[in-house]
Amino acid sequence: MASSHRKAAVRRRRKALLKGFRRTTGVGAVPGTIDPNLPVRQCRIRRLVYGGEEVVEELLTDYEQLQTPEPDGRITWIQIMGKPDAALLHQLATAFGIHSLALEDISNSHQRCKVEDYGSHVFVVSRLPRYLEGANLVTEQVSLFCGVNFVISVYEGDEIFDSVRDRIIRSRTRLREMPADYLAYAVLDMVTDHYFPVIEEIGNRLNAVDDEIEEQASHPQRSEIRALRADLLLLRRTIWPQRDAIAALMRDDCELISNSTRTYLRDCYDHTVQIIDVTETYRELCADLRDFHLSEISYRSNEVMKTLTIIATLFMPLSFVAGFYGMNFQHMPELSWQYSYPILILVMGTIAGSLLYWFYRKGWLE
Amino acid sequence: MASSHRKAAVRRRRKALLKGFRRTTGVGAVPGTIDPNLPVRQCRIRRLVYGGEEVVEELLTDYEQLQTPEPDGRITWIQIMGKPDAALLHQLATAFGIHSLALEDISNSHQRCKVEDYGSHVFVVSRLPRYLEGANLVTEQVSLFCGVNFVISVYEGDEIFDSVRDRIIRSRTRLREMPADYLAYAVLDMVTDHYFPVIEEIGNRLNAVDDEIEEQASHPQRSEIRALRADLLLLRRTIWPQRDAIAALMRDDCELISNSTRTYLRDCYDHTVQIIDVTETYRELCADLRDFHLSEISYRSNEVMKTLTIIATLFMPLSFVAGFYGMNFQHMPELSWQYSYPILILVMGTIAGSLLYWFYRKGWLE
Amino acid sequence: MASSHRKAAVRRRRKALLKGFRRTTGVGAVPGTIDPNLPVRQCRIRRLVYGGEEVVEELLTDYEQLQTPEPDGRITWIQIMGKPDAALLHQLATAFGIHSLALEDISNSHQRCKVEDYGSHVFVVSRLPRYLEGANLVTEQVSLFCGVNFVISVYEGDEIFDSVRDRIIRSRTRLREMPADYLAYAVLDMVTDHYFPVIEEIGNRLNAVDDEIEEQASHPQRSEIRALRADLLLLRRTIWPQRDAIAALMRDDCELISNSTRTYLRDCYDHTVQIIDVTETYRELCADLRDFHLSEISYRSNEVMKTLTIIATLFMPLSFVAGFYGMNFQHMPELSWQYSYPILILVMGTIAGSLLYWFYRKGWLE
Amino acid sequence: MASSHRKAAVRRRRKALLKGFRRTTGVGAVPGTIDPNLPVRQCRIRRLVYGGEEVVEELLTDYEQLQTPEPDGRITWIQIMGKPDAALLHQLATAFGIHSLALEDISNSHQRCKVEDYGSHVFVVSRLPRYLEGANLVTEQVSLFCGVNFVISVYEGDEIFDSVRDRIIRSRTRLREMPADYLAYAVLDMVTDHYFPVIEEIGNRLNAVDDEIEEQASHPQRSEIRALRADLLLLRRTIWPQRDAIAALMRDDCELISNSTRTYLRDCYDHTVQIIDVTETYRELCADLRDFHLSEISYRSNEVMKTLTIIATLFMPLSFVAGFYGMNFQHMPELSWQYSYPILILVMGTIAGSLLYWFYRKGWLE
Amino acid sequence: MASSHRKAAVRRRRKALLKGFRRTTGVGAVPGTIDPNLPVRQCRIRRLVYGGEEVVEELLTDYEQLQTPEPDGRITWIQIMGKPDAALLHQLATAFGIHSLALEDISNSHQRCKVEDYGSHVFVVSRLPRYLEGANLVTEQVSLFCGVNFVISVYEGDEIFDSVRDRIIRSRTRLREMPADYLAYAVLDMVTDHYFPVIEEIGNRLNAVDDEIEEQASHPQRSEIRALRADLLLLRRTIWPQRDAIAALMRDDCELISNSTRTYLRDCYDHTVQIIDVTETYRELCADLRDFHLSEISYRSNEVMKTLTIIATLFMPLSFVAGFYGMNFQHMPELSWQYSYPILILVMGTIAGSLLYWFYRKGWLE
Repeated sequence: MASSHRKAAVRRRRKALLKGFRRTTGVGAVPGTIDPNLPVRQCRIRRLVYGGEEVVEELLTDYEQLQTPEPDGRITWIQIMGKPDAALLHQLATAFGIHSLALEDISNSHQRCKVEDYGSHVFVVSRLPRYLEGANLVTEQVSLFCGVNFVISVYEGDEIFDSVRDRIIRSRTRLREMPADYLAYAVLDMVTDHYFPVIEEIGNRLNAVDDEIEEQASHPQRSEIRALRADLLLLRRTIWPQRDAIAALMRDDCELISNSTRTYLRDCYDHTVQIIDVTETYRELCADLRDFHLSEISYRSNEVMKTLTIIATLFMPLSFVAGFYGMNFQHMPELSWQYSYPILILVMGTIAGSLLYWFYRKGWLE
Repeated sequence: MASSHRKAAVRRRRKALLKGFRRTTGVGAVPGTIDPNLPVRQCRIRRLVYGGEEVVEELLTDYEQLQTPEPDGRITWIQIMGKPDAALLHQLATAFGIHSLALEDISNSHQRCKVEDYGSHVFVVSRLPRYLEGANLVTEQVSLFCGVNFVISVYEGDEIFDSVRDRIIRSRTRLREMPADYLAYAVLDMVTDHYFPVIEEIGNRLNAVDDEIEEQASHPQRSEIRALRADLLLLRRTIWPQRDAIAALMRDDCELISNSTRTYLRDCYDHTVQIIDVTETYRELCADLRDFHLSEISYRSNEVMKTLTIIATLFMPLSFVAGFYGMNFQHMPELSWQYSYPILILVMGTIAGSLLYWFYRKGWLE
Repeated sequence: MASSHRKAAVRRRRKALLKGFRRTTGVGAVPGTIDPNLPVRQCRIRRLVYGGEEVVEELLTDYEQLQTPEPDGRITWIQIMGKPDAALLHQLATAFGIHSLALEDISNSHQRCKVEDYGSHVFVVSRLPRYLEGANLVTEQVSLFCGVNFVISVYEGDEIFDSVRDRIIRSRTRLREMPADYLAYAVLDMVTDHYFPVIEEIGNRLNAVDDEIEEQASHPQRSEIRALRADLLLLRRTIWPQRDAIAALMRDDCELISNSTRTYLRDCYDHTVQIIDVTETYRELCADLRDFHLSEISYRSNEVMKTLTIIATLFMPLSFVAGFYGMNFQHMPELSWQYSYPILILVMGTIAGSLLYWFYRKGWLE
Repeated sequence: MASSHRKAAVRRRRKALLKGFRRTTGVGAVPGTIDPNLPVRQCRIRRLVYGGEEVVEELLTDYEQLQTPEPDGRITWIQIMGKPDAALLHQLATAFGIHSLALEDISNSHQRCKVEDYGSHVFVVSRLPRYLEGANLVTEQVSLFCGVNFVISVYEGDEIFDSVRDRIIRSRTRLREMPADYLAYAVLDMVTDHYFPVIEEIGNRLNAVDDEIEEQASHPQRSEIRALRADLLLLRRTIWPQRDAIAALMRDDCELISNSTRTYLRDCYDHTVQIIDVTETYRELCADLRDFHLSEISYRSNEVMKTLTIIATLFMPLSFVAGFYGMNFQHMPELSWQYSYPILILVMGTIAGSLLYWFYRKGWLE
Repeated sequence: MASSHRKAAVRRRRKALLKGFRRTTGVGAVPGTIDPNLPVRQCRIRRLVYGGEEVVEELLTDYEQLQTPEPDGRITWIQIMGKPDAALLHQLATAFGIHSLALEDISNSHQRCKVEDYGSHVFVVSRLPRYLEGANLVTEQVSLFCGVNFVISVYEGDEIFDSVRDRIIRSRTRLREMPADYLAYAVLDMVTDHYFPVIEEIGNRLNAVDDEIEEQASHPQRSEIRALRADLLLLRRTIWPQRDAIAALMRDDCELISNSTRTYLRDCYDHTVQIIDVTETYRELCADLRDFHLSEISYRSNEVMKTLTIIATLFMPLSFVAGFYGMNFQHMPELSWQYSYPILILVMGTIAGSLLYWFYRKGWLE
């Protein structure tokens, strides 16, 4: 049962891994086109304007309200929560001058992590890993546009950025003092932080399977190891481009990123490298675990083999002797001797004893 | 049957993989020579001239009509559909100044993807993957010449570029506004788009084999896994040079490519990287699947072994006891005792019961 | 017993490997924040001021005493022994201008080795490997700040740097003559030196397992090999970033490091490369050992198989013959012949002899 | 027989692989020394002088005739066919100023492919693969010196360059128009072309073994796969340095190579990359084939196992029952019952039927 | 016996591999310190001064005689034969200004190959491989200091450099004409030359094991393969840094190396690359050999299995039939029929014949 439950989980996860590559626009579509028929639910949009002492937060009800903010020293953070529809994308293009290719990327949420510098704004795609119930690992796309005085974040969920928002609203922290690129960094750092619990979860499960195998190796553990491998593969596929993206942001030729923020990005980069480090280590541990499991299973199968050999080697000679004196020849003198029966029992005992001693010497009886 | 069908498919595919390296020109041929004896069917040539409001399309009936277009601001797209013969190649050389090495490359359609900058035009070789019926994956060569105001595409099929052509003809899209290099990009993007359904097909088949193995591992699945590995190998061999070719196009020193088109090429490059990403992920999943299949098969074989051991271990002692009392000694007192038969049955039952309990404790009866 | 002892050791070590990635600050914490609730014991702080003939050592009792030293040509070494608490970190920030990200790094002691150049000081994280009792390998963080005339070292233990301290106090060695960066080097060199006994220990254990397997391959050795692999993995994960960190220190753009010290750092770098070399060699030897162990185990299992085959092949024909003449047909002429019994014994002997000779020819009796 | 024939071929090839590294000069010899005691047969030397309409070919009978040609616009090609002896090498040194290290390299014909630029001439070592009879793959050294107006080629055979020579002699092709470096390119291209039939041969053999394994996996195929692997290893060891050598020739700092020839060298380079591509693909296919063969063999061995288990599981219970009623107890009531014999036959049939049905359900009878 | 001899050799070699990393100075020692308690035997020192026609050789009896030679155009070669003691190292430091870190490196003879440029002299560490008796591969350190007009070589043996010395003394060869760096090159070339016989030895042993396995695969061959792998690992660990060291010498920024010598170093570099090439090829062949051995062993074990199955499958039905008619039922009509015995023999023969034919059809009797 546990096994079948596991298999189902593995299948779900694998499907996620395979499905992550679907493209919604068909072959031959105009590059930069958004499929207008996508079933979307209305996005919630929250705008946070802050600067100095002032913090203003509002929920936008109309896409028309989305406009490039005036350069008045304040910073505008627009949180788009949900999958953007065609109208919203159009508004982004006209109000913020977002390139159509970037719009295609946020509407098709299976992008690799990357950074594109469009001059007036930087476009960052990053991915956030999460365990759904049923041990189902998914990675969700978080898109960011960072301009001189605004940040636009696009993410399907809504509760994720609350801690960053609270830091802005509640008190006059560093976040309130720094330019818009620091806000973008804060969001990216938040995304990176979400890798740690996932990795810890994988570590715990690795540990659990390991203990289980030490206890008693069984066939279904194989599925769990495979599931862990698939998760680590997915994680690895996600985190390497994320590292490259952050490195691209840190490079000197990206003018929208200030030097002070670059120091913080380096910290974020270090975390990403650490995650890569752990992921690769876990992959090796996982491969070791697989070998270990295989060797335990094969050890048990050898034990079975040894038992068979001992039994067969013990009883075949004895059975032969018994069969020998079961022959019906009329002229078998031993049959009529008085003591041949007890002598034969002695002989059989000796044979059995010698064989057992020989097994013992070979170390087969351990 | 399914198995033999699969084997045939695998063989066809493998043959494709092996045949892809044949050269039609012999050892010692002059470099840049076209074998004049190649069996060719007449190419269809379609010329599309557009610019501003005007779009003219015509089918060329005579190779002589192929001439470098005048620099009148209009863009000429020449689609050569079929395998070019010697006369056509000669016309290309004289009218457009195509280098003989490039001509050799388009007449021998087993080239790696590459980009050659010949100054007055850029020569691009890319490959388009396609599943023929019978799950037979092939990659077909698409050659492109891109000059200041013309694009020549060479491809054996004909229906592939129709969507690009329709975008030019039907309405005043971006394609009509942009220079010739954007048209070249549009064709390349089209080729890249054809990788996605192939990858999806492979993903689906991976998924199907996986489910099948979970259900019941059997020997013929091995062939399917092998076929998938061969497909992925072919895909990988094709897509890596394609990435390098697009990267070479994007580099600054290629003067025929404008900066605005470069942004679009970067998008195409990202798609290629994504395809590589998926291909490598699938290769790992495929290797995992192979290990998994092997372990399932070996698990089943261990089960067979265990059954043998249990049966042999159970019946060998019992048979020995039965054989023992089948001996014909005259002086075997037990034989004449009244209750020795039921006692013996009891003893045998006890032996069998103990052994079964021991198996149960060992976990062999699960 | 030895086996279960080993398993426990392996489990401890693996846990260490897995636990090394825990982060104490939660997801969404402000970057550069120190968790104020960490259970800490009071740090001991020792200050060593030396220059020319003078050496002054004192234990600081109050964090307020920590101040940037005056530029009087003397060098100040502040040894923080223990896990720093929030108050101490605050004092470091105010007195030495340490960046909050560096403070987060020293309070969370699971960092990768790295070097950060903050202009007024260089921040170095390195890791020191140590075998705890029970063959439990851990790596502990040693953090270093190196300014123009001061070095701050942070390490949880206290006895480690005594040899460096003694070299300063006892006599006028090179250490007393050189600037602060040489002291930082001396501490780093000390950390690097601690890898050698660990590697020697691993080498000895590899050797011991190897000898044991040559003697008699047994199942529990598998656990030991796994433990060695895990140790080498941990070592490798630690030493590679350490090499990169030292290389970053040696680079020309790091102004706090003088050229004369760079020569010594190169020596330290060479040692690190040598450690990497040995670690990778041991990893290969360990993989070979695993294969060797597997092959020995499988050899023994083949021996078992061969025994079974010999016994079964020998006795099955003989048993058949015996069973044959145990049939109760009334008309079996051989049964009543005078010499059929001795003849049968001869026949059986011949069968057994031929089979044994055949086994001998096949090389199965070796 | 086929198997032993194959084994012999494998051995020959392996020997070739191992022997390729012998050095004829002893340890401690002066660098640049030619062993004067080498058994050599007289080289044939052919000189071809061409330029404009004129083509002069002659066989040199005396080494003294070898002189640097006058700079009269004509190009001299000196073909040395055979292994050069000491006198010839000396003449080359004095007449053409060839460096002693290059002379050592052409007298010891086991060099890696490489390019050395000695200012007045470029020295190129390349290797030509060939299948000797008996499927014996060897690579032979082709050395080239290319000066401003001369090319010297050194190769043990003689018929190889005939196609290049014919192109010069027969008609006024491009070869007659171009400078000496184009001749050097033509020779190199010829060498590269010789890789294709070798690769095709390997592809065919891979294909044949593959088909054979699909048909019926047998032990000797292992040797063929090994032989293919060894061939691919040899090919790979040869072609990678060849690629590097051609790349070195193409680099800008090599002044003897003109730009127009560089375009052709790029074509040659592309071919080399394609050969590498195929070689690496074949190596992967070969590894897959090995795995496949192993899995087929192990599948057949599992089939054997299954047969054993079915037979044993079927007959052991039946034999026990038969043995049971072969016991000689006087008080076994069943023995004297009228219908116990047919009932027993029924019981036995039921046992056998149930077991067979169970096997069928388990899928063992497929 | 052969096997136990081999095992001993393997153990010795492995020990060498493991011991190569010991450090004589303890943890925490001052960097650049020489352990004064090392047991050393007195070094022999030979000084060779040559220039123009003059060659003077003398054995130094007193360390004081070691002085930097006057710049009189003559070249001084100081050969230190044996492990240098503290007094000698001190003299080298004072007379030649050798850096203390270099002195530490020559007193601890387990260094990786490397090059250090100390301005007034270059310090080169290289390693010389040698087979001791008992197939025991060791690598010994050869240290070189090369100044403007002197070369100091340090090596524990003494007969190795005799051929270089003889070339200086005997006649006016190139060695006498060239500057000191050419002498250093000559010594390095000599060291590199020593790799070839070692590699040839390994090649021969690979070949021998290969032939042996083809003949008859047996368990002890495993040990030999392992030994070869360990040797190749040691060789690889040594030769890669050697290549890097020679490459560092060739780089332009090393002022003590003249351009003419650089050409020769390039030759030496090529040899090193060739050695690496062969080593890596042998490693692959060795891995193939291991797989091959494993597959042969498993093939033999499958043969054993097949024999068992054939015998068991043949005799189990026959034994059952015999046992069947050994039952003692009173009412078994066949028992009393006249011809049931010969009929039964026919039936048994038919069963056996059918089974044998079935085995033959399955290809099990080959």
